[in-house]
Amino acid sequence: MSIQPFKRIALIGIGLIGSSIARDVRKLGLASEIVVSTRSAATLERAEELRLGDFYTTSAAEAVKGADLVIVSVPVGASESVALQIAPHLRPGTIVTDVGSTKASVIAQMQPHLPSHVHFIPGHPLAGTEKSGPDAGFSGLFKGRWCIFTPLPDTDAEALARLRGFWEALGSRVDEMDPQHHDKVLAIVSHLPHIIAYNIVGTADDLQTVTESEVIQYSASGFRDFTRLAASDPTMWRDVCLHNKDAILEMLARFSEDLAYLQRAIRWGEGDKLYELFSRTRAIRRSIVEAGQDVDVPDFGRHALDKKE
Amino acid sequence: MSIQPFKRIALIGIGLIGSSIARDVRKLGLASEIVVSTRSAATLERAEELRLGDFYTTSAAEAVKGADLVIVSVPVGASESVALQIAPHLRPGTIVTDVGSTKASVIAQMQPHLPSHVHFIPGHPLAGTEKSGPDAGFSGLFKGRWCIFTPLPDTDAEALARLRGFWEALGSRVDEMDPQHHDKVLAIVSHLPHIIAYNIVGTADDLQTVTESEVIQYSASGFRDFTRLAASDPTMWRDVCLHNKDAILEMLARFSEDLAYLQRAIRWGEGDKLYELFSRTRAIRRSIVEAGQDVDVPDFGRHALDKKE
Repeated sequence: MSIQPFKRIALIGIGLIGSSIARDVRKLGLASEIVVSTRSAATLERAEELRLGDFYTTSAAEAVKGADLVIVSVPVGASESVALQIAPHLRPGTIVTDVGSTKASVIAQMQPHLPSHVHFIPGHPLAGTEKSGPDAGFSGLFKGRWCIFTPLPDTDAEALARLRGFWEALGSRVDEMDPQHHDKVLAIVSHLPHIIAYNIVGTADDLQTVTESEVIQYSASGFRDFTRLAASDPTMWRDVCLHNKDAILEMLARFSEDLAYLQRAIRWGEGDKLYELFSRTRAIRRSIVEAGQDVDVPDFGRHALDKKE
Repeated sequence: MSIQPFKRIALIGIGLIGSSIARDVRKLGLASEIVVSTRSAATLERAEELRLGDFYTTSAAEAVKGADLVIVSVPVGASESVALQIAPHLRPGTIVTDVGSTKASVIAQMQPHLPSHVHFIPGHPLAGTEKSGPDAGFSGLFKGRWCIFTPLPDTDAEALARLRGFWEALGSRVDEMDPQHHDKVLAIVSHLPHIIAYNIVGTADDLQTVTESEVIQYSASGFRDFTRLAASDPTMWRDVCLHNKDAILEMLARFSEDLAYLQRAIRWGEGDKLYELFSRTRAIRRSIVEAGQDVDVPDFGRHALDKKE
């Protein structure tokens, strides 16, 4: 990858995503210096123990001084606060990007505060696991995964190309779309699945007729799949729900409508309707595997890893 | 395992479960002879190519002649038909069991037709993958997984102990409960998750504003987890829905109620309520991993298997 390395990358936020970027930047030599910044002193200390950067500060304002690339990796609800803190300290020509799961809201929160002499390019790497914090990150997280840019109309082509090169160096495939469309796509492929997973795990937790130990003991029959998404970072997902409200509510309405149809088919014993739905969903799984977006082994390959007792 | 081997095991149905049993029985020497039976001539031929048994027949009636263990592994809706076919040909003392995902219905379908001189012990191994058919089975599928018996009040203790020994030899942990409770537990840990997964994949498939190729391309951000369960056998799941209707409708009602609460919290921007739910679900995941019911690696260990492009 013939990418021109950055002089100083400032990472605002050093959780799963930020710390994975840090590890890759170091490994691949994508910057001369890495500045790590996070509000929490304890997290910052941990980042230092993990040797994720060259400089460490709890001040986002300090962190961006002299940086030519700033990557904001915080829960989307904190975007405006970060923009306000860093704006006065950004030098001309700096690329400012983020990794937030919602884009229209992040743009609305950040753009008005950022000086016109920086290149603000909103981004979203579609990568992660259910773990969070600086220990959860790892080199290679972005390999083969998509990173979506939602550039603003007046975005500098050169800056865009440079940031694209950066993500491609991390192994990502880069796509571009407008922020509203991004938010709609993510509402169905990511936000709705997480919300539904949280909800079903909550429902199971509340049951009186089935004990929690039974739910846990017998979870391998389907339920456990949902618990992974439902173990994701609560702050991040609270913010996603609050900041992509309209698209999420639209998808929830469609989901509930479809579920009511399915529920009615069960109540009235309409086997044909059930069979029709249960058949057509199989093809989507096949397409996802063919597109290289999931592993081509039964049960996510768990049997290869499962403790056989 | 000091289990007394069976003389002749008749497997009625040779899909994922039946063929996995066949492979283990052979490997572990749990029977002198294996008779494989399935309605479909093509499936039977495939089973023979895979050398899953010693005798092959499309007639369930033929299959059970001389068997001292009969394992019915068919979609639960076919249980009564199988019982009617095999009943006249079962010899005294034979153990008849099944692997169906619903138990009250299977008992209602089979028990009235089976002669009193056999030991009918309804069972349900909680194991499987999203694949189906004789090629999908494998030796070791039941290792570390639970098998639930729902014995009838007058069940012979010796026959029960023998069947327990059989499943334990396959690596299963055996539990007992009454059929109604089984159906309620499975409705929440298995049936609801599958129905919800089918539903969300259907909703995504129907969208006009987001293309199917986008859904597939960006599925790694959460959606793909659901596609695995939604790729399960449609006939099996149609029958589960039709034969555990009451418990499933109860769980669906609770799920929808909880979802309405969550939806309202999103609409009104009630971050505290969202955070509260999103926090408490994390503990369940941890318990499942601690109980050995899921792998202890992020993202189900996919990153170890993922094609890194």
